[in-house]
Amino acid sequence: MKHLLMTAFALSALLTIGCKEQALKKATDGETHAIFPKGELGPAENFTGKAWHTALVANDTVYNTIVGNVYFEPGARSNWHLHPAGQILIITDGVGYYQERGQPRQTIKKGDVVKCPPNVLHWHGASPESGLQQIYIVPNTEKGIVEWQQPVTDEEYNNRK
Amino acid sequence: MKHLLMTAFALSALLTIGCKEQALKKATDGETHAIFPKGELGPAENFTGKAWHTALVANDTVYNTIVGNVYFEPGARSNWHLHPAGQILIITDGVGYYQERGQPRQTIKKGDVVKCPPNVLHWHGASPESGLQQIYIVPNTEKGIVEWQQPVTDEEYNNRK
Repeated sequence: MKHLLMTAFALSALLTIGCKEQALKKATDGETHAIFPKGELGPAENFTGKAWHTALVANDTVYNTIVGNVYFEPGARSNWHLHPAGQILIITDGVGYYQERGQPRQTIKKGDVVKCPPNVLHWHGASPESGLQQIYIVPNTEKGIVEWQQPVTDEEYNNRK
Repeated sequence: MKHLLMTAFALSALLTIGCKEQALKKATDGETHAIFPKGELGPAENFTGKAWHTALVANDTVYNTIVGNVYFEPGARSNWHLHPAGQILIITDGVGYYQERGQPRQTIKKGDVVKCPPNVLHWHGASPESGLQQIYIVPNTEKGIVEWQQPVTDEEYNNRK
């Protein structure tokens, strides 16, 4: 009987540890619990590394708003760019970076909300270790949508300058 | 040796089944993987059952956009209401309903996007069995934000009229 109890205890412990390991893996790869389809690969002229895009709301004259999801694989990031009417980012999974020109690089993570002011040059992307899932909202599209500029260098990405 | 192999196989099978059961529970309760804090309980004059609200972006004259998250517990729903400039819903977890006045009730679930047109009376909420996590976006707030009306009756909620 004692042997049986020990075995049951060992099984239960193994189950708990095993599930925690699985959950940890799922929490950090940024893909397993994805809300939206992975979508289309973003064009190399606007992104470094692999950034996957799913359109959620197309532009029209009723809502004047574009919504979409981007999944940045670890190390991937956008070019520097700006939005004439600004942009709102909602981070739904993973860990990444957001930086405005002339400001410190900020770490962003699941649950964070970032407001990119109109006409402020900035970039965003994943950290080297973890992917990043983000919903973006571009409001007031009658003022313009996006202006793409140069890639984020490795020095900029790694916060070495 | 054969006994050892059988035990290892049994352990592995148990681990897999146990984790799947845990994952299934987490996928359907709508709370375990929540992206945002649960927030504040929505007022009883606007909601039936428990709906929890977290503000994400407050209104201002730069973005003219309000963003927030609502977690509807199973069975909870909003009153009938309308938005002078419309609303966009992004369902991030769970299963629920969306209905516009005079139209059939729609089932909505994780990954769905709903556009509620300007000045169209509607309600949204969780199904009886599963909670619902939704991000809402109210654009063009200079035109107005929300006008609340009467509760959704049990007959309306259960699609019996």
